[in-house]
Amino acid sequence: MFIVVGERINTSRKKVQEAVANKDIQYIKDDVTRQQAAGAHYIDVNAGARIGHEKEDMEWLLKIIQETVTIPLCLDSPDPEILEMAYGMVKDRPMINSISLEKERYEAMAPFLKGKDCNVVALCMDDTGMPKNFEDVIERAKRLVKGLEDIAIDRESIFIDPLIQPISVDTSKGIMAIDSVSGIMKELPGVHTICGLSNISYGLPQRKIINRTFLSLLMYAGLDAAIIDPLDDKIMAALKTTEMLMGNDDYCVKYLKGVRAGQIVF
Amino acid sequence: MFIVVGERINTSRKKVQEAVANKDIQYIKDDVTRQQAAGAHYIDVNAGARIGHEKEDMEWLLKIIQETVTIPLCLDSPDPEILEMAYGMVKDRPMINSISLEKERYEAMAPFLKGKDCNVVALCMDDTGMPKNFEDVIERAKRLVKGLEDIAIDRESIFIDPLIQPISVDTSKGIMAIDSVSGIMKELPGVHTICGLSNISYGLPQRKIINRTFLSLLMYAGLDAAIIDPLDDKIMAALKTTEMLMGNDDYCVKYLKGVRAGQIVF
Repeated sequence: MFIVVGERINTSRKKVQEAVANKDIQYIKDDVTRQQAAGAHYIDVNAGARIGHEKEDMEWLLKIIQETVTIPLCLDSPDPEILEMAYGMVKDRPMINSISLEKERYEAMAPFLKGKDCNVVALCMDDTGMPKNFEDVIERAKRLVKGLEDIAIDRESIFIDPLIQPISVDTSKGIMAIDSVSGIMKELPGVHTICGLSNISYGLPQRKIINRTFLSLLMYAGLDAAIIDPLDDKIMAALKTTEMLMGNDDYCVKYLKGVRAGQIVF
Repeated sequence: MFIVVGERINTSRKKVQEAVANKDIQYIKDDVTRQQAAGAHYIDVNAGARIGHEKEDMEWLLKIIQETVTIPLCLDSPDPEILEMAYGMVKDRPMINSISLEKERYEAMAPFLKGKDCNVVALCMDDTGMPKNFEDVIERAKRLVKGLEDIAIDRESIFIDPLIQPISVDTSKGIMAIDSVSGIMKELPGVHTICGLSNISYGLPQRKIINRTFLSLLMYAGLDAAIIDPLDDKIMAALKTTEMLMGNDDYCVKYLKGVRAGQIVF
């Protein structure tokens, strides 16, 4: 099953920031209810945008969201202290977003993650920046998996993000990302792959068409999770259609249910 | 470069049949002009629907279309006598649509094709019907290529159609078609693959979403030609976006040109 992490609860989004500032509980409840109804498997919660308020904003958001949805949460912060608080608040096994190979981030996150019961998003980023090529991604993915397995995070709980880069900068970046996903799935059996999609279309017009077409190609390459907006009907239509075309929808039941719910739209 | 064969000039389509019956030259001219402008590389011409009139209809259509477009034609008939006439009428090297492994069709088409200067669509169909599985497709593709090479059609002129079957009947048919395309491209280097897409979605709602998503997956698998409607903006948007994502659009120029022309739409 392809895993959808709903990306909407992020205080860098204007309406979410306003809701947090105004303590608008109903706005948050409505948003996450709709994300779950649209097929999200996790609700990502990122409270980083109001500088100096991350901890209180995260706490406020988690309390409301926990009361509202029955799906688990993806705790999105670089700060282990905030993650420790958040981890203590959630009812279900969360996803932690994220660790990377950047020295400072790794050293902050590894002690927090050690022995925790959670899924982990692991970014192929180090102190030299984004990966340069396919080989670089595979080498970084292996280092991340080794490091996480050493602190008792099993492979099935690891979601490697190969980090998608803009095709407008270098037209080989689409194929590099696709090959990276299939390479990680092959070289590290049992591990998951996850992507945010929107970087691919940075700097180009009609970005949503690019993002949703890219999602189909990445799914074919083996991607099994994505951080997306589940209320974007068109990307969800691409996702459900691709799952069906890849033979992962017996009797086309999920697709047909999506059509009846008005979710498979142009 | 991905090859688009424009499928619109087919007398089984009501408006085309009316235009042919009424000798409406302008309708045909407008349609093929628009197909070329939208990016078609061939105009398929099928005059089979008015029983007893195929030869005269084909002749009438070819004359008009030849005067109107500068791209080559795809001569679509099972009748070698009609194809011989049509072949004599075209200015540019045509595509012939099609030969198959059905005994009667093969024996009619092979003598016509022998030594001709043309591309050929070759269907993986034999007298037992559609291929049952991946191995079946590959075996048939090899027989078709062997047979055509024996009559001096070189491999680079052969477009194998693996024959897409409805996913509503068997959910493995999507993967079978995708694997078939990559298998043919790998096992028979130099050969081309071509598909009509619409069979995949037979019996399901929102067929166009399925067809265009499937096109992206097939292109990733190696498909290099499709028989489609170039005036369907959404399938052309999927095509151009996929070409860009696969690194076949330097500086994203074709994509950006498509956006400016209003062709990259949801």
